[in-house]
Amino acid sequence: MIDRNIIRALVVETPSAPGNLGKVASAIGLAGVDIGDIETVQVGPTSTIRNITVHCDHEEQLNKVLDTINQLGNGIHLHAVSDDVLRAHEGGKIHMKSRLDVRSLADLRRVYTPGVADVCRLIQKEPEKARLYTGIGNNVAIVTDGTAILGLGDVGPLAGMPVMEGKAALFDRFVGISGIPILLSTKDPDAIVQTVKHIASGFGGILLEDIGSPHCFEVEERLKKELDIPVMHDDQHGTAVVTLAAVISASRHTGVNLKEAVVGQVGLGAAGLAICRMFMAYGVRQVIGADKSEAAKKYLQDYGGETIDSLEELMERSDIVVTTTGVPGLIQKEWVKKGQIILALSNPKPEIEAEAALEAGAAYAADGRSVNNVLGFPGIFRGALNARAKEITHDMLVAAAEAIADSTKKGELVPHPLDPRVHSVVSQAVEAKAKRNL
Amino acid sequence: MIDRNIIRALVVETPSAPGNLGKVASAIGLAGVDIGDIETVQVGPTSTIRNITVHCDHEEQLNKVLDTINQLGNGIHLHAVSDDVLRAHEGGKIHMKSRLDVRSLADLRRVYTPGVADVCRLIQKEPEKARLYTGIGNNVAIVTDGTAILGLGDVGPLAGMPVMEGKAALFDRFVGISGIPILLSTKDPDAIVQTVKHIASGFGGILLEDIGSPHCFEVEERLKKELDIPVMHDDQHGTAVVTLAAVISASRHTGVNLKEAVVGQVGLGAAGLAICRMFMAYGVRQVIGADKSEAAKKYLQDYGGETIDSLEELMERSDIVVTTTGVPGLIQKEWVKKGQIILALSNPKPEIEAEAALEAGAAYAADGRSVNNVLGFPGIFRGALNARAKEITHDMLVAAAEAIADSTKKGELVPHPLDPRVHSVVSQAVEAKAKRNL
Repeated sequence: MIDRNIIRALVVETPSAPGNLGKVASAIGLAGVDIGDIETVQVGPTSTIRNITVHCDHEEQLNKVLDTINQLGNGIHLHAVSDDVLRAHEGGKIHMKSRLDVRSLADLRRVYTPGVADVCRLIQKEPEKARLYTGIGNNVAIVTDGTAILGLGDVGPLAGMPVMEGKAALFDRFVGISGIPILLSTKDPDAIVQTVKHIASGFGGILLEDIGSPHCFEVEERLKKELDIPVMHDDQHGTAVVTLAAVISASRHTGVNLKEAVVGQVGLGAAGLAICRMFMAYGVRQVIGADKSEAAKKYLQDYGGETIDSLEELMERSDIVVTTTGVPGLIQKEWVKKGQIILALSNPKPEIEAEAALEAGAAYAADGRSVNNVLGFPGIFRGALNARAKEITHDMLVAAAEAIADSTKKGELVPHPLDPRVHSVVSQAVEAKAKRNL
Repeated sequence: MIDRNIIRALVVETPSAPGNLGKVASAIGLAGVDIGDIETVQVGPTSTIRNITVHCDHEEQLNKVLDTINQLGNGIHLHAVSDDVLRAHEGGKIHMKSRLDVRSLADLRRVYTPGVADVCRLIQKEPEKARLYTGIGNNVAIVTDGTAILGLGDVGPLAGMPVMEGKAALFDRFVGISGIPILLSTKDPDAIVQTVKHIASGFGGILLEDIGSPHCFEVEERLKKELDIPVMHDDQHGTAVVTLAAVISASRHTGVNLKEAVVGQVGLGAAGLAICRMFMAYGVRQVIGADKSEAAKKYLQDYGGETIDSLEELMERSDIVVTTTGVPGLIQKEWVKKGQIILALSNPKPEIEAEAALEAGAAYAADGRSVNNVLGFPGIFRGALNARAKEITHDMLVAAAEAIADSTKKGELVPHPLDPRVHSVVSQAVEAKAKRNL
């Protein structure tokens, strides 16, 4: 009976009095729909919120149930209908947990007053002890203004929270970092910089996330300069690290000497520019970039890169091509050169399909699904925090990219994102490089 | 052998190469000191940090061990020596944990990209859904500028972190709130208000903590006005709630009708003023206050309270006296009136010892050790968040105080701070009151 097509969880609030759950359950049953688990989410003095799983045959039946519950009235409210993905997000994906038990008065006196006063006094006298006796050295703020959430654009910080919580969940699961989402209700670079500076002393690092271009450049550069803890904009450098790793792997597969090759970058947005800078930091001699925007080209020139106006010419000159334009099908099949490596990274539709590129003679081709920045940021921050680095340098990022490439199995472009070894290898490479720089 | 007087944990960093731990262990052994557990805290590519528990007979022997380790050199560093309290604080007391497993690609696609995009889009369309599909409705920022940490004064936000982490640990353990310490590196009220407003959208409530007087008044009032989530300064209202609860209990013990009684408050700092306001909100007809500062007296007059200049006269007129001056022994025994209730709350030394007050004829007397604000803030915020209240009103605070008083066992002043029932009772009382206000 319970194996039906559509499974949904209904979030239903009823008055806290006997009989109300029965009304809801009967309404569901009358519609011919099965009930699975019922979980009590919150019991209040006047109302109770429950999560009721229902199994329906088809969409129409589900809609009938929803209508029926909506019509019950008398304080019964249907708040939401969750599918599998939404269900996983209910109540949020993260929680600030106590690392200690508080079961006795002795526990309370140790972790709270009066014991805690000794720790405060010690830190007042020796501020560097805060790294040892608080979690600050393991805290990373995950900061967004909501202006470039995933590929969705400027949807605002609130709608960006599920992404920030996701990053925090991965920080915890992969490298044990305590990641703390900070939603900024301002897009003004001055206000962003000021706000982050005012709260920075509680953190060991700042991960800037999904902040739009071009203000992301100013925000990151000013914060890097004005704070003495690691600051990194993941959409720029995290993406660039994983892209460099993928290109190192692809070069190995195809026998190309990456440092001697010509690399063409199509699209000079935040990610594209960072990718160019990462290639230059790695030691690639010739990096050429194309973009419609004169401002974007100017940025690349300022960083020491060469720009080019014709896409065809870029394709003609490049041994390796990386695209991050967001324009599906931008690269024509006939432009592809024999033996070329092409990574068309725009999601969900690439600038050229991998099959098409390979048919046209490319030696290696892949799209953005294979280049997951989950491989980068956890280990990069773990390594930087372990080394107590004051900044994340391009040297450290290149070390991360090489560590990812070295962890890649033969025939693959990058490691599996859930390979736990990769994060520890990246962390160690970054830590070692940071310590050598100190 | 292992049962010695002094137990300490030594945080020692050694080069990551065989033989180095041996050098440290031998040095400890040569001093005649026993080694207990050795825990590896961090293994890096170049160095390893360990926590070595040592058992010594006396302080001199411990110092000898520390000297010997400090002299080893060759990359061996003694970073810290932790006693029991410091040991509990190592690495911090809280950690942001993922609530979900991330074991398969399906998990990753559900909690991170691409699944998370559906949740972002839903919240963009229906912002109120953020309460359901993120943790925002359960997040409370614990905000300090470090200007009034415990009784230590303006020790700065960094030295205040152990207190903020302690509050977060208690939020988690007692009521399942996700408490997030925010350290502000500014004491300017404008900058504090601006910063908190800029980050407020990630939180369901704001707990202001250990912010000094008088700027705490302006900061709290402006934030309450400008934000539509609960804001509460614990050192004012949390303390006042527990004090009112204690006075309700003491009145019950002694058969005093509190609302008809004259209550004298000695000391009109942040806590003292809030206590006066709480008595007025509860319905006490006559509240009189004394303080040396004219500004403080003006505040009380503005709130509708009466001020008085002579301490002796206040003692003479009051049925109930509460003191929060920080001045030990301020109240002379001969001022005590027969049958009076006296709560002398200053820590660690009260304005009058309870025994002295009782000898002088007081019907009930207690000091600050018995009035623990741990009883208030967890349940107050749990109730306010459950009700989705936009503010914490005096009505809600009085309901909390009454719930605490009603949970107090006969003969006690307040409940045991680890009584788990009290937080749920307070939460329900606050939630019910908030819902009635809506």
